[in-house]
Amino acid sequence: MSTSIKLTVELGERSYPIIIGAGLLQAPGQLVPYIHGSQVLVVSNETIAPYYLELLTNALVGCQVDTLILPDGEKYKNLDTLNLIFDCLLEKRHNRTTTLIALGGGVVGDMVGFAAACYQRGVNFIQIPTTLLAQVDSSVGGKTAVNHPKGKNMIGAFYQPQCVLADTSTLATLPVREYCAGLAEVVKYGVIADVDFFNWLEENIDALLARDPDTLAIAIKRSCENKAKIVSQDEREGGVRAILNFGHTFGHAIETAQFYCDWLHGEAVSAGMVMAAELSRLLGWISSEDKQRIEQLLIKCRLPIWAPKTINGETFMELMSVDKKVLDGSLRLVLLKSLGQAVVTSDFDAKCLAQLLSDKE
Amino acid sequence: MSTSIKLTVELGERSYPIIIGAGLLQAPGQLVPYIHGSQVLVVSNETIAPYYLELLTNALVGCQVDTLILPDGEKYKNLDTLNLIFDCLLEKRHNRTTTLIALGGGVVGDMVGFAAACYQRGVNFIQIPTTLLAQVDSSVGGKTAVNHPKGKNMIGAFYQPQCVLADTSTLATLPVREYCAGLAEVVKYGVIADVDFFNWLEENIDALLARDPDTLAIAIKRSCENKAKIVSQDEREGGVRAILNFGHTFGHAIETAQFYCDWLHGEAVSAGMVMAAELSRLLGWISSEDKQRIEQLLIKCRLPIWAPKTINGETFMELMSVDKKVLDGSLRLVLLKSLGQAVVTSDFDAKCLAQLLSDKE
Repeated sequence: MSTSIKLTVELGERSYPIIIGAGLLQAPGQLVPYIHGSQVLVVSNETIAPYYLELLTNALVGCQVDTLILPDGEKYKNLDTLNLIFDCLLEKRHNRTTTLIALGGGVVGDMVGFAAACYQRGVNFIQIPTTLLAQVDSSVGGKTAVNHPKGKNMIGAFYQPQCVLADTSTLATLPVREYCAGLAEVVKYGVIADVDFFNWLEENIDALLARDPDTLAIAIKRSCENKAKIVSQDEREGGVRAILNFGHTFGHAIETAQFYCDWLHGEAVSAGMVMAAELSRLLGWISSEDKQRIEQLLIKCRLPIWAPKTINGETFMELMSVDKKVLDGSLRLVLLKSLGQAVVTSDFDAKCLAQLLSDKE
Repeated sequence: MSTSIKLTVELGERSYPIIIGAGLLQAPGQLVPYIHGSQVLVVSNETIAPYYLELLTNALVGCQVDTLILPDGEKYKNLDTLNLIFDCLLEKRHNRTTTLIALGGGVVGDMVGFAAACYQRGVNFIQIPTTLLAQVDSSVGGKTAVNHPKGKNMIGAFYQPQCVLADTSTLATLPVREYCAGLAEVVKYGVIADVDFFNWLEENIDALLARDPDTLAIAIKRSCENKAKIVSQDEREGGVRAILNFGHTFGHAIETAQFYCDWLHGEAVSAGMVMAAELSRLLGWISSEDKQRIEQLLIKCRLPIWAPKTINGETFMELMSVDKKVLDGSLRLVLLKSLGQAVVTSDFDAKCLAQLLSDKE
């Protein structure tokens, strides 16, 4: 028996449910209402496919089910890999009524979502995130993209899925490092928008690290609720949604410097969050104590709390300025007015940022 | 002095104007209200750029203007060429507020529109079509795409421009063959939706072939009006918009068989329209006389009226079935209920289609 929670991301005619629960892939009847045509392409990666692909495809009876297994890793999130999805869809003659299903982490989700946005100018898709990061972040909100050698997520679309199915049981097989990287985004929601959740996380971090199912379900639900609420207000990131990028401008600079091949996304975001918090402290916006609370929680999650020393300050600044959050040449950052309240701003003392980046060295 | 006509494509918050007139590029003040940021990338091709690129860029004062010149031709309308646009945007550090301007024919317009749809998940763009085909068809309606080796326009987006500026003076430099290919789409509007316009075209075809400015302005305006009306009713082609594809399923099969390297798009569409009209006649829906009127008008436009004999019937059927208009396996075609009234249907006798394609051989 599986119990599940259903949330809705409210986006008018593009609204969709997030279904969260343990063992949902064992009861895939939940998916059926969201498949409208008679063709399905399930896209997964070589790490996840052996665990769950057969379980899923066996359940999709009565329609043409094709599968595609991609190489695993952020470094494959590019136009070449995207093209493998198009090749497969055309090879198997998928038409406009097809449904793409992304079974995997954020990389698979981002690419399959973007492929769905572009294939024949848009077909349906469903997200089945199998990592903590994807369950609490990348599979919710409709941001899809691939990377370009000169910048992360530079080519993409806002494109909403028909539904998101987050089976918490899939997290049992997740390596510790990836699980912890996912916790970075969980912590983020507390830091930017929900101080009560931050307090709860401080109290429950041990149970969460032990992957206690009930604690995990609460953390995922609360994360998705926070994200859904923000996305509903600002689907295309014209304003408030940008606070979800807290830690990401710093984090993307780290990932780009590493050619997406070293740290995991959540690890880079963790370091980026502490850097953004420290900048907020330097500006006098938050207290040393609040900054330390953030740092301590991330340390407990076994996450890095500063950029690697190998990236010098000048390079770091250069990489940050390519970020999408640069508006008309002035760097906009997500910073903290207080713990639980983030703002997007370019109104900060550039000297403080320079100091921050040179301190790093 | 230039006079201009302004039409509006009514699409709610995505509505935009089409400005039609002679000498508009000489008076580019028309563009200024539609450029919102401080960066512009003008993308053109090696044929058009020598004529108009400098004229345009000289007029765009007070902002960062970059240019990119692509190779000319449908065979370059692919993901590789698209990537040149992304490379350039990132190289020149264009941010989310940038505006892309497509200066050229349908190929440039389709690619730049799609690049704008994807770059940083969507930036503004403006269409300045310089071919008749682009002025009456591809630059209006928000369909953007690139080709895939297995099918035309298979990767793309519905993405509306900020405005379309159709300078009829640019048609003076258009080679005869391209000009005539554009007339195929002009004729199409009469055939599918506007019998009065069809009658007018029969009467004015000589003046139109002589590129008489006033006749041309009327033809472009009427074409855009017809297209805008249909697109306003059905932006994402869920229904009626599909009639704009009259002749295109046959035409795309021809282009695919030729690897987009032989006939021009309008030529393939011309042949496709006669084939669709002939199928409508075989089904008893239109008279022989009406089919002949269509054929005669296209012959006067120096356009082909049947697929090349080199494509055999079986291959032709195979290529047609990859078309986006295939719904759940059954081939849907745009056929004529009468001259001036097209319908989208899969409700036709497959034997008639088989007969049509075998007659071809």
